[in-house]
Amino acid sequence: MKKASSLSELGFDADGGASGFFRPVADGASTPTSQRRRLTKISVIGAGNVGMAIAQTILTRDLADEIALVDALPDKLRGEMLDLQHAAAFLPRVRLVSDTDLSVTRGSDLAIVTAGARQIPGETRLNLLQRNVALFRKIVPPLAEHSPEALLLIVSNPVDVLTYVAWKLSGFPASRVIGSGTNLDSSRFRFLLAEHLQVNAQDVQAYMVGEHGDSSVAIWSSMSVAGMPVLKSLRESHQSFDEEALEGIRRAVVDSAYEVISLKGYTSWAIGYSVASLAASLLRDQHRIHPVSVLAAGFHGISDGHQVFLSLPARLGRAGVLGVAEMELTEEEARRLRRSAKTLWENCQLLGL
Amino acid sequence: MKKASSLSELGFDADGGASGFFRPVADGASTPTSQRRRLTKISVIGAGNVGMAIAQTILTRDLADEIALVDALPDKLRGEMLDLQHAAAFLPRVRLVSDTDLSVTRGSDLAIVTAGARQIPGETRLNLLQRNVALFRKIVPPLAEHSPEALLLIVSNPVDVLTYVAWKLSGFPASRVIGSGTNLDSSRFRFLLAEHLQVNAQDVQAYMVGEHGDSSVAIWSSMSVAGMPVLKSLRESHQSFDEEALEGIRRAVVDSAYEVISLKGYTSWAIGYSVASLAASLLRDQHRIHPVSVLAAGFHGISDGHQVFLSLPARLGRAGVLGVAEMELTEEEARRLRRSAKTLWENCQLLGL
Amino acid sequence: MKKASSLSELGFDADGGASGFFRPVADGASTPTSQRRRLTKISVIGAGNVGMAIAQTILTRDLADEIALVDALPDKLRGEMLDLQHAAAFLPRVRLVSDTDLSVTRGSDLAIVTAGARQIPGETRLNLLQRNVALFRKIVPPLAEHSPEALLLIVSNPVDVLTYVAWKLSGFPASRVIGSGTNLDSSRFRFLLAEHLQVNAQDVQAYMVGEHGDSSVAIWSSMSVAGMPVLKSLRESHQSFDEEALEGIRRAVVDSAYEVISLKGYTSWAIGYSVASLAASLLRDQHRIHPVSVLAAGFHGISDGHQVFLSLPARLGRAGVLGVAEMELTEEEARRLRRSAKTLWENCQLLGL
Amino acid sequence: MKKASSLSELGFDADGGASGFFRPVADGASTPTSQRRRLTKISVIGAGNVGMAIAQTILTRDLADEIALVDALPDKLRGEMLDLQHAAAFLPRVRLVSDTDLSVTRGSDLAIVTAGARQIPGETRLNLLQRNVALFRKIVPPLAEHSPEALLLIVSNPVDVLTYVAWKLSGFPASRVIGSGTNLDSSRFRFLLAEHLQVNAQDVQAYMVGEHGDSSVAIWSSMSVAGMPVLKSLRESHQSFDEEALEGIRRAVVDSAYEVISLKGYTSWAIGYSVASLAASLLRDQHRIHPVSVLAAGFHGISDGHQVFLSLPARLGRAGVLGVAEMELTEEEARRLRRSAKTLWENCQLLGL
Repeated sequence: MKKASSLSELGFDADGGASGFFRPVADGASTPTSQRRRLTKISVIGAGNVGMAIAQTILTRDLADEIALVDALPDKLRGEMLDLQHAAAFLPRVRLVSDTDLSVTRGSDLAIVTAGARQIPGETRLNLLQRNVALFRKIVPPLAEHSPEALLLIVSNPVDVLTYVAWKLSGFPASRVIGSGTNLDSSRFRFLLAEHLQVNAQDVQAYMVGEHGDSSVAIWSSMSVAGMPVLKSLRESHQSFDEEALEGIRRAVVDSAYEVISLKGYTSWAIGYSVASLAASLLRDQHRIHPVSVLAAGFHGISDGHQVFLSLPARLGRAGVLGVAEMELTEEEARRLRRSAKTLWENCQLLGL
Repeated sequence: MKKASSLSELGFDADGGASGFFRPVADGASTPTSQRRRLTKISVIGAGNVGMAIAQTILTRDLADEIALVDALPDKLRGEMLDLQHAAAFLPRVRLVSDTDLSVTRGSDLAIVTAGARQIPGETRLNLLQRNVALFRKIVPPLAEHSPEALLLIVSNPVDVLTYVAWKLSGFPASRVIGSGTNLDSSRFRFLLAEHLQVNAQDVQAYMVGEHGDSSVAIWSSMSVAGMPVLKSLRESHQSFDEEALEGIRRAVVDSAYEVISLKGYTSWAIGYSVASLAASLLRDQHRIHPVSVLAAGFHGISDGHQVFLSLPARLGRAGVLGVAEMELTEEEARRLRRSAKTLWENCQLLGL
Repeated sequence: MKKASSLSELGFDADGGASGFFRPVADGASTPTSQRRRLTKISVIGAGNVGMAIAQTILTRDLADEIALVDALPDKLRGEMLDLQHAAAFLPRVRLVSDTDLSVTRGSDLAIVTAGARQIPGETRLNLLQRNVALFRKIVPPLAEHSPEALLLIVSNPVDVLTYVAWKLSGFPASRVIGSGTNLDSSRFRFLLAEHLQVNAQDVQAYMVGEHGDSSVAIWSSMSVAGMPVLKSLRESHQSFDEEALEGIRRAVVDSAYEVISLKGYTSWAIGYSVASLAASLLRDQHRIHPVSVLAAGFHGISDGHQVFLSLPARLGRAGVLGVAEMELTEEEARRLRRSAKTLWENCQLLGL
Repeated sequence: MKKASSLSELGFDADGGASGFFRPVADGASTPTSQRRRLTKISVIGAGNVGMAIAQTILTRDLADEIALVDALPDKLRGEMLDLQHAAAFLPRVRLVSDTDLSVTRGSDLAIVTAGARQIPGETRLNLLQRNVALFRKIVPPLAEHSPEALLLIVSNPVDVLTYVAWKLSGFPASRVIGSGTNLDSSRFRFLLAEHLQVNAQDVQAYMVGEHGDSSVAIWSSMSVAGMPVLKSLRESHQSFDEEALEGIRRAVVDSAYEVISLKGYTSWAIGYSVASLAASLLRDQHRIHPVSVLAAGFHGISDGHQVFLSLPARLGRAGVLGVAEMELTEEEARRLRRSAKTLWENCQLLGL
């Protein structure tokens, strides 16, 4: 069933719309290109559950003047775009466009990649990764070409490796290629502590860093509430407080992602809010500190030659990664980071980029 | 796999959390019940695509201090709640609770019902409706009992009949039972006109009223942009402007919902924004005018005995429906309304309420 | 008393701040100029009650990444800037700068002029106007030079004449020079009707157009609530409804500005919100319709040769005035507009621009 | 000049407004009192620069459904209220009321007191204080009577003593009487550090506690950026880092308030944002931690008998002060706190409450 989705398809003269109602002022020149360029455009590649939760949260938060959606499935894509457009009367005006072709992203200030291949039963991790690299070869170079000054934000998993892949394929400086990394893991960490202490999670400072996923590292020393250290208080509220108790907390954070997946089949809302918060910090030049996947070579004893991306607390602004915080880690924490870096680097070298 | 989702499950003393960090002031009494009651609580019944888009938009818009989710599927329900909770670091603090039991909704200011039975292939509309009535018999009386002062907002379809059902089953005054009705249809209508005229949809006044769905009525006479009538402008931008051209526009609005369903399988975002806008107008006492399903007996020649719910432009506030606008309709528009009312009333009488 | 307002004045190494905490990623280039340019900058010229209410509302509403304040009084100016900066912990990060020199406005997207000479007791209107023109000669050309692509928004009174002056002095196309005009008068009009009808003022469409001040014109025909005409309802709620009754309403709107001035000495909050709403519509490309002062030559029978600025409902976007609505006026309404235009044009010609 | 500020004053039938446009649904009962009570009401006592900056920021932030303004000067008061009301078209609908009589505050959820006597040249501090106590005797008991369940937030200076006075005069539990204290001083502290480190002030944790004003105490040990200690970094960016360097920072924070006053004559914007942030944390039950003036007896070695109010980091929610953080202080920091407490207690005892 072909439906009309504009009045011009119904025989109304497109020019007759605005021009019948409005007339330009006498010497009003048309919009100069330079001003069109000043509108903020965000592209989301991949219109699945994660991509759409991101796009919708960005829309609700009014972070962009134009949002472009790209997906390989044209019907799904058009359905999602229309579903957002239909809310026009309840939202500020935002231009929403969508296409299966990446040229629709032209002129983006921020391109968010959520697309990824799904694991085939029995498939090895390496094989899956290689399929994802093949997918990124189709996505990243055109993205970079259409928006040579954009920031690239990678959400697809395994996020650390794929952020490296996007960096290599885009040719962008590392400061403009960022992985969503442990930004969400850290929110889960803060939520868990905030519930225990009955405070607002925004008053809890706590970081998960390193590799997103099972081997992420919780930085116990920086864990504080409104600047006051938490470790002592935790110690007093646990009978036999030891390394194992802390590992239990870290494990609970890591497992909470798996738990959501096992319960509802995927995660969407929290990653949507997480990425929208990154978009705000980047595009509005907020200089906020987020644990995100950045080029980690040279930090915490990671070899300068290991050009891996790992999550570290980074100061984000309009230019991307403005700096990486020189956290003090325990030797054990730093060792874990270096171990992750080594493993990731070995994986990255297999990709032939 | 059982996962810990709080520190107390990991052996930390629940009392040791806040109490290790904070101490009450000397004569600080505990929270009086009267102040707990002043927090704003919204319940969403049904955690499917529609219910979750509503809950998430309400959360992003910061419209509630507490959100309760209810669904028959405990795993899905818990997964959705955790997925929202994990975003705590990116949001104001909101208490999120969920349960398969409706007692979790106790003390709601607004209860939004999105639950509904799905059509079984080959099932008659009447049979489906009767299954929905059976479902509402399980939901509405407990809702009303747990929150005797709440506003009820019905989103489940067929929305006009089920709003009537909720009214009868709740025993609430009609001013506190509202169906989402054509609030979203009207946004689609406004979007279509706004695109044509290249203006912000919020500056377009245009209403769909009557029965939500195929037989909804577009009120052409009230169609205006910033208070200026639009019909003349449309006439001039269409070669052979006539009744058929207008029916084409109305049809395009009605079909756009079907189009989204055929493309992505369901609608979610736009209904989420639509219902969140109703929640804001109601709970924040906005006195805004929305076309929503209200008790229409006595309006536009609808018989006082036909106690049907139909969408009419209603002024909404903290007490629910503050009033229904006395629109001037053409005789044809009023005739269509009455015809819808008559058909709906016949259906309602079959339900034995 | 000289006070330290930064740590570097206290002997801390400025470079040692961020650089002691953060290190750039390995190949991180410095911020490209092209990205600096993408931040949104608003300048406010004149840090009196009106200018500061505007700047503060823009700050609260998060409409700019950088705000520049300019005033002739350096102490007052610095005090106002510091007072805003001290709220940093309660606001998104916005760069606040101030200077008595207009070069601080360099690269503005929007420049808002509130500066104006005050009437000296016994001074003629023409003399006051000429002093204001002299002031604008010092302000407008440097503004235009420092921000050749900016939008100019004039708030200083008499706003219609001074918007013309700014247009001539800037050399900008008329689409980029806008006077705040009757945007606030219209809000007062809508408030008065909204209170009477007990609805949200955002659901009331009602325009004051023409010259800002005593001779403004209320457009009765476009007065509607949610698209429904209001005139009939007013008629029924007034014993002897006639021209005089309508003039009474118009007069009450006009007088309400004088009333605020007589009561508190000046107006500030409402003009702050009004101008912030214009800033949002312009910079976020909202295509909203506002009654603002635009080049009115050729509209409603105003002679093409009378290059006056008068308020008409205009569609505003990132390029400034996108179009002016072709309202239908009664002959009497159009006549009043033309009379205002003629008087204004005579005044403008005396200015020797 | 008497001006009409409503249509009913112009001879329009007040009942004819809404009732001519809207009709209630058939069985629609009138608003139950219980629902009226659920609207959020904030009262601001004192409509000077500070009171109005608070009221306007609360309005822009949409924190209340009703705002009541009280001042002794009826003209100024009415002018301020009208100036806010005139912005109706640019804001969500909020009921604004004002009166010189405190009965207008009836049913407040939060009452903010900014009224205070001004120092007469040559007047002793004690005399000024006694005049303020006399003023509070007229304000606080009626406030408490009209809103027996309200939270009281004292902004008038000297804030610590006057919060004690309000506590005694209201008869409220200490958990519901709060002074704005060092919430703003701490924001200034965080701003200073944030500028030095080029990060967002919201990522800087740093507290000023104790007595608001000259003898406030900076808690150096809790000073951190995103959970990472700052002191070491500061040390490295200062040639001869010692106690004096830290005192220089503390002094700069304290002096910055005086500087604004010396430059613009008063402070307004920052205190407006500060108090609005407290209002949000309290009324929206945010459990955020703010350094505010609370009953400090028993904390940090302050004698249980010294019932003084001093700023300490407190967890705020709908019930007021939910708890006070058990910060670890150095012996010197604690000693200063106790010294302030002792002096304040001596002052309080002179007041004869």
